Amino acid sequence: MVSLADFGPEVRAEVKQVREVVSDLHKQLITWNLVVWTAGNVSQRLHTADLMVIKPSGVRYEYLTPSSMVVTDLHGNVVDGTESPSTDTLSHAYIYRHLPDVYGVVHTHSVYATAWAAAGLDVPPVLTLMGDEFGGPIPVGPFREVASEAIGEAVVETLKKYPKSPAVLMRNHGPFTIGKDAEAAVKAAAVTEWVSHTIWAARQLGDLTELPQADIDKLNDRYTNVYGQH
Amino acid sequence: MVSLADFGPEVRAEVKQVREVVSDLHKQLITWNLVVWTAGNVSQRLHTADLMVIKPSGVRYEYLTPSSMVVTDLHGNVVDGTESPSTDTLSHAYIYRHLPDVYGVVHTHSVYATAWAAAGLDVPPVLTLMGDEFGGPIPVGPFREVASEAIGEAVVETLKKYPKSPAVLMRNHGPFTIGKDAEAAVKAAAVTEWVSHTIWAARQLGDLTELPQADIDKLNDRYTNVYGQH
Amino acid sequence: MVSLADFGPEVRAEVKQVREVVSDLHKQLITWNLVVWTAGNVSQRLHTADLMVIKPSGVRYEYLTPSSMVVTDLHGNVVDGTESPSTDTLSHAYIYRHLPDVYGVVHTHSVYATAWAAAGLDVPPVLTLMGDEFGGPIPVGPFREVASEAIGEAVVETLKKYPKSPAVLMRNHGPFTIGKDAEAAVKAAAVTEWVSHTIWAARQLGDLTELPQADIDKLNDRYTNVYGQH
Amino acid sequence: MVSLADFGPEVRAEVKQVREVVSDLHKQLITWNLVVWTAGNVSQRLHTADLMVIKPSGVRYEYLTPSSMVVTDLHGNVVDGTESPSTDTLSHAYIYRHLPDVYGVVHTHSVYATAWAAAGLDVPPVLTLMGDEFGGPIPVGPFREVASEAIGEAVVETLKKYPKSPAVLMRNHGPFTIGKDAEAAVKAAAVTEWVSHTIWAARQLGDLTELPQADIDKLNDRYTNVYGQH
Repeated sequence: MVSLADFGPEVRAEVKQVREVVSDLHKQLITWNLVVWTAGNVSQRLHTADLMVIKPSGVRYEYLTPSSMVVTDLHGNVVDGTESPSTDTLSHAYIYRHLPDVYGVVHTHSVYATAWAAAGLDVPPVLTLMGDEFGGPIPVGPFREVASEAIGEAVVETLKKYPKSPAVLMRNHGPFTIGKDAEAAVKAAAVTEWVSHTIWAARQLGDLTELPQADIDKLNDRYTNVYGQH
Repeated sequence: MVSLADFGPEVRAEVKQVREVVSDLHKQLITWNLVVWTAGNVSQRLHTADLMVIKPSGVRYEYLTPSSMVVTDLHGNVVDGTESPSTDTLSHAYIYRHLPDVYGVVHTHSVYATAWAAAGLDVPPVLTLMGDEFGGPIPVGPFREVASEAIGEAVVETLKKYPKSPAVLMRNHGPFTIGKDAEAAVKAAAVTEWVSHTIWAARQLGDLTELPQADIDKLNDRYTNVYGQH
Repeated sequence: MVSLADFGPEVRAEVKQVREVVSDLHKQLITWNLVVWTAGNVSQRLHTADLMVIKPSGVRYEYLTPSSMVVTDLHGNVVDGTESPSTDTLSHAYIYRHLPDVYGVVHTHSVYATAWAAAGLDVPPVLTLMGDEFGGPIPVGPFREVASEAIGEAVVETLKKYPKSPAVLMRNHGPFTIGKDAEAAVKAAAVTEWVSHTIWAARQLGDLTELPQADIDKLNDRYTNVYGQH
Repeated sequence: MVSLADFGPEVRAEVKQVREVVSDLHKQLITWNLVVWTAGNVSQRLHTADLMVIKPSGVRYEYLTPSSMVVTDLHGNVVDGTESPSTDTLSHAYIYRHLPDVYGVVHTHSVYATAWAAAGLDVPPVLTLMGDEFGGPIPVGPFREVASEAIGEAVVETLKKYPKSPAVLMRNHGPFTIGKDAEAAVKAAAVTEWVSHTIWAARQLGDLTELPQADIDKLNDRYTNVYGQH
């Protein structure tokens, strides 16, 4: 079995840094009210080796530290760490193997995103914030068995049909989000819940009109290329 | 009347440790937004004697300390402590006497779980998180008089019909949850509220489809036997 | 004009202590999510003189201190303090003059209690927690002009019809609550919002059945006479 | 290009102070749950020069400091600061140029205000708190392209029709609020969300009755001229 000692100093340095990033970002899941108890996880892929850092399984958020994070290869085999990795590890690994630009994956059961997933409905693009972040609807993916790579497979399939969306609402389960790093995936998870809540509330007020695709494309283009610090 | 001085050092050491655990876990009721003012309580049964540690009655959460917790026997008689025990003490005691694997009990009035209880409806199993934690619906129990052991009796009766569920929604009252220790019962209370909220919201979006029982059983089996650190 | 220097040391000592209590309890309005910005206020009547201590008008909660609280007589005339008192002062004063057992008054615009007030509906007694705290429905009071004593008058009239309730939902305005001290009134405000939210959510699930009055009376009697530390 | 060094010491002193005010007020957006991740911004216009201080684009709230704020002129040209300014800068600038009494502007995507905006509905004036703060309904403005001054233009047009309202709900987008300083605009943003939530919830309970305009005017007049410390 491979261990971290088999890797060079550059990899070990990145592991150390990514353990801190991933541990820290789990606090954001609490800040944005995306998770209950231990249900939810963040991972980040390394740039220096085919490895990823992920949450340990079933550990309460207040007990997470950089050293309790688990390092696995991209088939979910543990390479470093004293804990068992998240039960969603195989799906995170599948996503990294099949979407080479993705370096961060997040899974939550956030309330309103999961409500849309339970109802089997896409969140319709009726807000500028959705044009920005998703470039269209937030799609629902199929129901799949948990703890195997079946979920990762379905996430990848669904995202191929919605290439601008960083989020999939897995039916009867909850959202999975991706990004160029773990922070971007956490951001997508937070925005997914926020717009799921907003549009859920809007539906109680009356019929909603989707934004025209041309406006959505303009929003998405500007947000992707201009917004933020460059 | 029996007092703690009648017990040996092993029991007194466990009392000391469980006072800390139970006091601390009340903070989790606040963290997960499960209680208002003083309405809700946690208890844990001891392994070294037929005793339990429970919240004092009507004391605000920010004033709870290990030493303000109350120790009673399994009929609710106070054995140690300067405060009166929770008015739900007799029901906690009844549950411990009749469910020998249970070492933790929690009662809250959390908003969405109590909403289902007020409407007299089971929470239907439409989420993987429900398969994991409850193995089926969260059942409603009957309306019973408070502050007697009648509630404990109804909780036990209801759980016999739903042996995989750690939660009962007492009609017109609120959830009671159980676990192998107080932490597991607090977790069940937090997850009960989370899924009650999610599925409440999903119902506003349209008709819901329950997961097939075979999928629920697979989820529950994996969650019980594989999830977490072993 | 009367000033605090005209009162004896016992009164001045009580003023000092009640300034601390009232200042501190405003933090609970934030803890329980009952107020926005500066909209809401707590007062407590003194036992040693016909005076009350109340929040200054329009000051943000994080800036409140014991010394910024305002002391007035029971007609709202300022007796001590550097700030203008709450615009609801005349209504607090009216309540203290007409309900001699009341020593605490709270007003908020908490979301779900105010929603029932906007719809002009009593909150129906469908929960044990309502039997405990209100002994029946939470009644709606009439719409009244703000900043005069008209609101206090309507609160007193409504409570005469519902003598067990510590809360009135003033129509198109928000809840007013009373208690034997300011802490009891804050508690009533917190529980009012909690059950208003819960029963609002329950109504979305289906028809609700009120508890029989005999059960409500039993709950209210036990809660008033047995619950808590004595 | 103009830089801050071209201005006198009085202007540089005001810039320093307003950087602190604006940085600090962004924390209030989090306190009152008005924003997700980086989506929302506060600005304040200076009194000593035609300049404004605004949030940098796409920076997380916990990383904001006085020195990361950006100073621009009233056409959005950067005059001081190391970061790119908010993508809404041109709209803030437009508002300051066309509404000379306005010295604070805030934009959020707060959930319930944005829900009304998505449904294209004014929030009806059914609460005293709305009479106080808005003097009538909270109006919906048209859908406009983001990141240009088109939004500022539409905000100004809408407010001309509703001169007492400090808020406009931009359709399919979210609320913009104004005030005599940034603090007043943040307050308007917080109250906008609070009443949007309350009246949304009230609508689920039944039909709502608007307050008579005479009562609204009385409330608004008192609130504007009497409420608070003078």
